[in-house]
Amino acid sequence: MKPLILITNDDGIASRGLLHLASIAQEYGEVIVMAPDHNASGVSTSITSTRPLRVNTISQSESYSVYSCDGTPADCVKMGIEHFCPRTPDLVLSGINYGSNASINVIYSGTIGAVLEACLNGFPAIGFSLLNHNPAADFDACTPTIRHILSHVLQHPLPDFTALNVNIPRLPANEIKGIRICRQARAAWKDSLEKRIDPIGRPYWWLTGKFVCDNPPVDSDQYLLAQGFATVVPIRPDFTTSQSLDSFKNLEQ
Amino acid sequence: MKPLILITNDDGIASRGLLHLASIAQEYGEVIVMAPDHNASGVSTSITSTRPLRVNTISQSESYSVYSCDGTPADCVKMGIEHFCPRTPDLVLSGINYGSNASINVIYSGTIGAVLEACLNGFPAIGFSLLNHNPAADFDACTPTIRHILSHVLQHPLPDFTALNVNIPRLPANEIKGIRICRQARAAWKDSLEKRIDPIGRPYWWLTGKFVCDNPPVDSDQYLLAQGFATVVPIRPDFTTSQSLDSFKNLEQ
Repeated sequence: MKPLILITNDDGIASRGLLHLASIAQEYGEVIVMAPDHNASGVSTSITSTRPLRVNTISQSESYSVYSCDGTPADCVKMGIEHFCPRTPDLVLSGINYGSNASINVIYSGTIGAVLEACLNGFPAIGFSLLNHNPAADFDACTPTIRHILSHVLQHPLPDFTALNVNIPRLPANEIKGIRICRQARAAWKDSLEKRIDPIGRPYWWLTGKFVCDNPPVDSDQYLLAQGFATVVPIRPDFTTSQSLDSFKNLEQ
Repeated sequence: MKPLILITNDDGIASRGLLHLASIAQEYGEVIVMAPDHNASGVSTSITSTRPLRVNTISQSESYSVYSCDGTPADCVKMGIEHFCPRTPDLVLSGINYGSNASINVIYSGTIGAVLEACLNGFPAIGFSLLNHNPAADFDACTPTIRHILSHVLQHPLPDFTALNVNIPRLPANEIKGIRICRQARAAWKDSLEKRIDPIGRPYWWLTGKFVCDNPPVDSDQYLLAQGFATVVPIRPDFTTSQSLDSFKNLEQ
């Protein structure tokens, strides 16, 4: 039996990046798409508990079915796995996202929220992002990288409780230098809220800000993307610090 | 000068847990509250980029000011620090949350989303949660634990890029056995979407599910809370796996 691949994203069901990823995935298996019916960028691992969810069937066939849902990317993963996959999925994919999910962007990303949701439930999962917010972004340039990673992961299963965060630089396919395993760089968005005044004199604030990532380490995603590599960060939904817990022992009571 | 403490939560500005935390914090310093004007439970580290944000001033004095914002907990942290704190805060607190943010709940939590937002920007931050969803929850029982942790952290600064996720068991104060440093347990919510049929025959789904955490390790939050301890997990906003990155090298190209 061919692998069953569930796909979602955070840019919404109409995203060209989603359709491109679904078309590549069909080379490897049976595909179910369950994606938000709206742009859900920046919703992280949000889940919807205050209202019920609805699903819209867009197309159905033996090898490729497409559904939209009015929930978050993490909701879509739960919904797809529990109620719309004909059997347990072999792989959960998210993307291709418009824009970077490298470095600290991973914290806010609905694309990666979906990946973490799949991972914590024990499913192999991969998020794909292209460093390009332009509506005309060239997703074809991502194809060789995505094919390499899908082929590899379907042949060499990921370790338990481990997912992949893949970012692809904004370059023609033949200028991407290769694929590198690395870690998440530390960074932050500074001066992130811009104040304006409305026509009747009341203040409001827009999210904005500049991305600051000073001297990223050579084994980090931010550094390697700038060198022209596609980056793969192995991730898992666990925030426990990597420092020794013993160093905090004097807080105990 | 007294410490400046910024406080937010995800249950919203009217939460008794928020007011209780603010009252304890006033024993230690000047307090600014900037909290969502609505219930933002389960929004993780969401940020608001598709509409501007508004702030409502509820009360202002030299030592204690209270504002609400129509954004997420992470938005509230950015807003408070950048536009409403009279100087750089010495500490950012979030909570007291109604219900557990131990184990995998941390991934969905708006309470912890705020803590991670503060942490990635370099601010010491602590999230407090009580394992009780009851509107009449006894937050007084949390007071000794919170006082101990605030006193300690103000005297012994947290390491860089490290925050604390504190969970408090649902017990009278004198039955809480102590405070333990530990790691996040692995768990998941199973059977998480319940299907129903509306009056005109269309399906809809409610988020629900049962929490499954089999045999949590003895050094995990889930285990220690069940033993009657308050738990402290040192956390940081980095999803990179703790496994050796070398084990993934054969994926490189």
